[in-house]
Amino acid sequence: MTTAAGILNSLEFQMSILLFVALAGYLVSSKIKQSAVVGQILVGILIGPSLLGLITYTDFVSQLGHLGAVILLFAVGLHFKIKDIMNLKYGIIALVGLVVPWMFGFITAHLFNFGFGGAVFIGTALTATSIAITANVLKEMGKLQTEVAKAIIGAAVIDDVLSLLALSVSEEIVTGSFSVYLTIITVVKAVGFIVIGVIIGQFCARKLFTKIDNSNLAKLHPETVFIFSLMFAFLYAMAAEIIGLSAIIGSFLAGVSFEGVGLVHGKVFREGTEYLQIIFGAIFFVSLGILVELHTLDIDLLIFTLVLTIVAVLTKVIGCGLAAKFQGMNIIDSLIIGFGMSPRGEVAMIVALIGLNKELITQNTYVSLVLMSLITTIITPIVLRRLILRETAEKIR
Amino acid sequence: MTTAAGILNSLEFQMSILLFVALAGYLVSSKIKQSAVVGQILVGILIGPSLLGLITYTDFVSQLGHLGAVILLFAVGLHFKIKDIMNLKYGIIALVGLVVPWMFGFITAHLFNFGFGGAVFIGTALTATSIAITANVLKEMGKLQTEVAKAIIGAAVIDDVLSLLALSVSEEIVTGSFSVYLTIITVVKAVGFIVIGVIIGQFCARKLFTKIDNSNLAKLHPETVFIFSLMFAFLYAMAAEIIGLSAIIGSFLAGVSFEGVGLVHGKVFREGTEYLQIIFGAIFFVSLGILVELHTLDIDLLIFTLVLTIVAVLTKVIGCGLAAKFQGMNIIDSLIIGFGMSPRGEVAMIVALIGLNKELITQNTYVSLVLMSLITTIITPIVLRRLILRETAEKIR
Repeated sequence: MTTAAGILNSLEFQMSILLFVALAGYLVSSKIKQSAVVGQILVGILIGPSLLGLITYTDFVSQLGHLGAVILLFAVGLHFKIKDIMNLKYGIIALVGLVVPWMFGFITAHLFNFGFGGAVFIGTALTATSIAITANVLKEMGKLQTEVAKAIIGAAVIDDVLSLLALSVSEEIVTGSFSVYLTIITVVKAVGFIVIGVIIGQFCARKLFTKIDNSNLAKLHPETVFIFSLMFAFLYAMAAEIIGLSAIIGSFLAGVSFEGVGLVHGKVFREGTEYLQIIFGAIFFVSLGILVELHTLDIDLLIFTLVLTIVAVLTKVIGCGLAAKFQGMNIIDSLIIGFGMSPRGEVAMIVALIGLNKELITQNTYVSLVLMSLITTIITPIVLRRLILRETAEKIR
Repeated sequence: MTTAAGILNSLEFQMSILLFVALAGYLVSSKIKQSAVVGQILVGILIGPSLLGLITYTDFVSQLGHLGAVILLFAVGLHFKIKDIMNLKYGIIALVGLVVPWMFGFITAHLFNFGFGGAVFIGTALTATSIAITANVLKEMGKLQTEVAKAIIGAAVIDDVLSLLALSVSEEIVTGSFSVYLTIITVVKAVGFIVIGVIIGQFCARKLFTKIDNSNLAKLHPETVFIFSLMFAFLYAMAAEIIGLSAIIGSFLAGVSFEGVGLVHGKVFREGTEYLQIIFGAIFFVSLGILVELHTLDIDLLIFTLVLTIVAVLTKVIGCGLAAKFQGMNIIDSLIIGFGMSPRGEVAMIVALIGLNKELITQNTYVSLVLMSLITTIITPIVLRRLILRETAEKIR
């Protein structure tokens, strides 16, 4: 016989709750006519430690969420050709979208009397981009094939390299161990991984995949094709993480490697990925809500958080948006790109956690950053949906 | 930058390895013309702590394996009507298949000079049945709809209730705290759960499921039907575990509740379950191989292990097989039932671990029980395959 605490900790209970929140999230979202992500995060907050406390961010929840993000970006990658996202224009969008938030994050923190170290770190947290949210909204609305989607995803990949750089440089500046040499190494490794990953993916892995698909084993057990593709996604995710990039950049590149590949058993692999993504993608978004802990909020902190959130959104919208506009995109597309790059999601939360653990920021600042991250994450799908609907309406006219 | 140990512990690496072993298992199995399960367990042993040590039985592996077993039995349950498995005949098969192994396990241990407590416990470990292996072989070979499959699965459900009882009675006998009252409570709870679970499943849950399927939410997001079914499976698994039964008995009953249910979005739910099961079922079998640790084997222990394994297989084959034969089944069907009930799988390994932790058995005995469990688990699919192929051949003739 199990105790009450034992029940709450059992895998089965946690899975049931996660799936229940996913369902409830769909329901809430459809009532308020929003992306399922919004409902899932909101119900996640409600059920999580901030309010009801039915589930906490256990290792199990964190791990399943992590798997979900990897699988989601693999599924998204399957819709992109490599040449779609490799573009100097997107590099510029990413760069501006990194420098502007960093600068204004630093200034804002400075105005609120943060010391140098804290201000640098708050700036860094503002540079993050959580592409999973935007990718999911674009996927939900069937817009992955648009020019705008390519710009957002392309910029997000480059942004991840730059953010990695920003984080390590910030840490080095604050701790006084900055070294040009180490910074160059970090860049070379990250760029090297992407270049080599793309080459191996496009040539070796794609060939191997079709070979496996044509093998006798696949004839006997078509599911092996699906298992192989997923194994490859996790291998790439692992490699990305070893380099210091997000795991999801790896699985995205793995997906890109298999874009449009002609297979005998293509149905098994594509459907299988979709179904896995339905369950684990939803669990990932639910876990974002559970990750939030909102206890210690006073009025001063609230004001700082709101200002920081506005700065966070505006700097990405203006930074990335202007960069896109200057490259000849129309206003709505530029706004979609700007807002699409806005969600900080779990990335900023993790950066904040690193800062807290290294005592670069206080518990209060940590809560502010998490809340900022949360609001940008919830706002994005709402705004994106409107912008995309308006654009579609204009095109029809 | 991550260290070597960090890489081995990363989720992505573990997922890649698990999927790699699953693939390699398919390959090995198809070469030796065996069920995929056999290859997956064997390659799991090879990669696991016993030999290469590339992966250990971490919490993550254990949890994913656990999810896999729950999902597998849910998928199996979908093929069974409740009246198919509720049959007094199967109860008799289960009862004989419990008493005979317990008795002969006790006698064997006694002959090898084990004390009373150890002998009782070894007997108990021999009563376990791991139905996942047999269910998977029957599923692989398309034999879930046969009379024999019904007998095996029906008997396995009852066997789980009886094993729970055997374990708690054994513990009480050995520790001298045996009480008729507590034993009755255990039985009532377990039987009560199954009866109430079946009633709720067949009436309330099935109705709710078709209601959700017909809702506007399902029209907008057909995947909610799939998410709901999975949530229900984990709720039932949780309830079973709270009572003290295996979680998989719960998810099996959940599956049975949704057998043949006519749905608008039935395809999403059925396909989704199949695809999840492909990945997580395979991970479960791989995890069984990883669970095995084979270090401390000397010649005495080896002899005891071999004798125990032979006793373990024969007592189930003769016990369950004779019970089936007496009820009018033919010889091959009786053998299929006997061997089908033979695999001890993770159940006996977990029982052995409980015994080790409570100091009822030594480390050596623990290794013996794990090995016995492993061998019965690997033998079963091999023998079952042959028997089923022979039966099919005879029918064709």
